[in-house]
Amino acid sequence: MKFYDCATAPSPRRVRVFLAEKGVSLPTVQVDLMSGEQLSESFREINPACTVPVLALDDGTVITEAIAICRYLEDVYPEPPLLGIDATGKALVAMWDHRAEVEGFLAVSEAFRNETKGLKERAVTGVENTAQIPELAARGRMRIARFFDVLNSRLGDSAFLAGPHFTMADITASITVAFASWVKMEIPAGHANLLRWYDAVKERPSFGA
Amino acid sequence: MKFYDCATAPSPRRVRVFLAEKGVSLPTVQVDLMSGEQLSESFREINPACTVPVLALDDGTVITEAIAICRYLEDVYPEPPLLGIDATGKALVAMWDHRAEVEGFLAVSEAFRNETKGLKERAVTGVENTAQIPELAARGRMRIARFFDVLNSRLGDSAFLAGPHFTMADITASITVAFASWVKMEIPAGHANLLRWYDAVKERPSFGA
Repeated sequence: MKFYDCATAPSPRRVRVFLAEKGVSLPTVQVDLMSGEQLSESFREINPACTVPVLALDDGTVITEAIAICRYLEDVYPEPPLLGIDATGKALVAMWDHRAEVEGFLAVSEAFRNETKGLKERAVTGVENTAQIPELAARGRMRIARFFDVLNSRLGDSAFLAGPHFTMADITASITVAFASWVKMEIPAGHANLLRWYDAVKERPSFGA
Repeated sequence: MKFYDCATAPSPRRVRVFLAEKGVSLPTVQVDLMSGEQLSESFREINPACTVPVLALDDGTVITEAIAICRYLEDVYPEPPLLGIDATGKALVAMWDHRAEVEGFLAVSEAFRNETKGLKERAVTGVENTAQIPELAARGRMRIARFFDVLNSRLGDSAFLAGPHFTMADITASITVAFASWVKMEIPAGHANLLRWYDAVKERPSFGA
């Protein structure tokens, strides 16, 4: 197995934290997104979509998308379970991970990619260039604020997002909160449940991954 | 179990087709998105995010997000498997389902919600109103065209998206292709692999669900 990572990027960090929680370390190749290495001919041969994370298996299978890689790793390294235990638990992890990604992570990406000077033609990931839409950066910020409200409300009912235990959903959501600081969005001071949870997640050794 | 659906909407259709493939029929409540029933007080008590599909379990657990609902249904009704069999197969289904949703389904939603006259203030799902961004509709169309290319390329190597068998990834991708016709985007005539696959999927009895 070989893990294609970029140590500074939030998306592969979901896999790094997942691996750290499992206590697993994989042979890792760094792909330098800052210099555009993901667009190189050699990386396109590995992943034509030009994204990280990627997990290349020994049989030649190439897995992209953080959630798909983590699903594979959960089967190979089942302990501790991070994708849920019984049918209901697995569904709640999938639900909250999906909400964290679509309502949170993609909103931060939308804000970041549509307003960062160095990304003028890189508003969408992938091979081809895409121009920025400044209004979309503003919408992204508004969606981040709504997402903080959703998290704060949920975490008033539950220790972690999918229930009493730390799971993949907490990984995606906490990396989203950290990523939001890239566009100067922080948890509002009155969001006590969210602040309590984020402090707890930050204390886990995996958070530094 | 109770399934909250909207018979005309593409997002809950992923669950309808999944159930049809399993040969399962659940007690179903129709939520009329056209008249805004998802924003009513009574529906907010079920799902504060005001979206369908929703699966309400007998113990009171509420599952939202099509992929999370299907994950639950796969555990309860394992045959035929639609989320993969072994670790690699499960990862490939998760990967292609995720790509179909983020690169395809969300791109169509982006185009549709940002240009449809009746949705002027409803460019993002949820309780609060959000104004349209016309430039984003154009970007959505460009992303749909790129997604058709991705599908056509993949389906040159494989009978179905995640391998030799029909899975959830094909459900999400085929519903995305059907949804794209709402914004007048059709599979380009030269995309022979994609056309062959779409014809095969349309012939399945579940496609009408």
